[in-house]
Amino acid sequence: MTVPVLLVLDADPPPRLGRLTGRARVVHTDEAGLAARLPEADVLLVWDFTSTAVRRAWPGGGPRPRWVHTASAGVDHLMCPELAADDTVVTNARGVFEQPIAEYVAALVLAMAKDLPRTLDLQRERTWRHREAQRVAGTRACVVGSGPIGRAIARALRGLDVTTAIVGRVPRTGIHGPDDLDRLIARADWVVAAAPLTERTRGMFDARRFGVMQPSARFVNVGRGQLVVEEALAQALARRWIAGAALDVFQDEPLGPDSPLWRLPGLIVSPHMSGDTVGWRDELGAQFVELYERWQAGRALPNVVDKRLGYVPGH
Amino acid sequence: MTVPVLLVLDADPPPRLGRLTGRARVVHTDEAGLAARLPEADVLLVWDFTSTAVRRAWPGGGPRPRWVHTASAGVDHLMCPELAADDTVVTNARGVFEQPIAEYVAALVLAMAKDLPRTLDLQRERTWRHREAQRVAGTRACVVGSGPIGRAIARALRGLDVTTAIVGRVPRTGIHGPDDLDRLIARADWVVAAAPLTERTRGMFDARRFGVMQPSARFVNVGRGQLVVEEALAQALARRWIAGAALDVFQDEPLGPDSPLWRLPGLIVSPHMSGDTVGWRDELGAQFVELYERWQAGRALPNVVDKRLGYVPGH
Repeated sequence: MTVPVLLVLDADPPPRLGRLTGRARVVHTDEAGLAARLPEADVLLVWDFTSTAVRRAWPGGGPRPRWVHTASAGVDHLMCPELAADDTVVTNARGVFEQPIAEYVAALVLAMAKDLPRTLDLQRERTWRHREAQRVAGTRACVVGSGPIGRAIARALRGLDVTTAIVGRVPRTGIHGPDDLDRLIARADWVVAAAPLTERTRGMFDARRFGVMQPSARFVNVGRGQLVVEEALAQALARRWIAGAALDVFQDEPLGPDSPLWRLPGLIVSPHMSGDTVGWRDELGAQFVELYERWQAGRALPNVVDKRLGYVPGH
Repeated sequence: MTVPVLLVLDADPPPRLGRLTGRARVVHTDEAGLAARLPEADVLLVWDFTSTAVRRAWPGGGPRPRWVHTASAGVDHLMCPELAADDTVVTNARGVFEQPIAEYVAALVLAMAKDLPRTLDLQRERTWRHREAQRVAGTRACVVGSGPIGRAIARALRGLDVTTAIVGRVPRTGIHGPDDLDRLIARADWVVAAAPLTERTRGMFDARRFGVMQPSARFVNVGRGQLVVEEALAQALARRWIAGAALDVFQDEPLGPDSPLWRLPGLIVSPHMSGDTVGWRDELGAQFVELYERWQAGRALPNVVDKRLGYVPGH
């Protein structure tokens, strides 16, 4: 029996793959070496989930891995027409990020309702200034994205007694379809973007959509930066079309020091960390090892991405 | 029928008592005028719930109001031995602050778990620095205070999948007694003070108690400042006996600009606002009007304070 070649597009720290000793010939590569090593690989682990090197290297010549796993929920950074057309199976890290991201969104919603950024500003100025906070219970949210992350966010918000609607690509029980989106965001206190980045969702939060929202509404993006037309959000905040926003993801990451987004009024900027809790890398590594063992045993893989849709469908 | 005299210890803005027109002769007073007007009053509304003027004026000569209502949850600012010994009924604002304070504690817990203060610092410095946050689900909390506020906090934390114990003065179903306190705070990730200020609770969070907590623990006070020995908390933070804290209440309020508490490492300072959400003053006023109508009709009042204990007992 030949030992499969497992190519790892590395990031620091590398994954812990000790359990695969003798069961995989592990080859590590960086972005520059990826294209040359793809033809020899049976399996590709995209450990550097910020890299777009797969998308760039894939169309090249020679055989391609039978299976690509990405240590992320989104697959937009690796998909290209050639990979979509190949027989290659693509899997993602479904199951690791849902709960942390839901907590993160709850943290942002509560922080904005309780005016916590202003409290911290006043603390730095040694100024005691009592204000009235907002009650979260009884407010309305619209979560855009009906995958496991969007649904976990909705559960967390409902736990705070926030009336929460979910919008997905296809209407089904408990999920609204795209036709309801404008109506729902028009009456939401909280609009949360947690959709995968696809050709349908790219730039969906544009000037028109921010214009539909209430002046008291706040917008949160924990999906992908490209869901949002950042210039339109900047204008919506400056013109007070909406009351505030929190972005954890951006069109260009890391956000450069010259970006105007750092200083927009009412905007909280965080460095793409919503899903990353202590131990998350170990969890991602352990998840891959488990999938690898299933794959090697010839069993069906979970978390298989519909490459045409750009995410794991169903449920 | 004589119209009762309703004395209001005023604050700005004053209460809306229009519904009592013709049913009460409303007399407004400030702190300086309180002692002189107490003998003529049938009812005293302590609308300025930050004032200690009642405690100072009560022992004076002459008749005393039959009923005192304070627009606050705590009654420590007005109780004195003479008021405790009188027949006067004391009621509080139970029911108004529970949900807002519970949300506020959830906001602080999530903000600390997700390192939000540091995120805002880095944003101000235009610095992108990814960190790993903490998962809140699966952590442990100990809420000290088993009244409606403490129980609402516990419900909110349990909604975030935090395993939460409540400690009260008397053990009962679902409530631990004081004997369990040290054991519970020794293994808690979150220790939340929400007890009334009484002779039993004054200074209960002292150097010994902070020493019992885990180095990873965080402490939150939304009760009364005097529950905490502030110097001991300062040392516990400086020596990293605990990982962080958030205070919404202080020994002296408002906190002066020279207080060292503004700049303690790992401490969030907020200006006694945890219970105060938009519309709270109207809610407090409406609650008093309802109680007044019951009182005038000769019906039993809810929210009656046990003046010996210093809070509304039961449930």
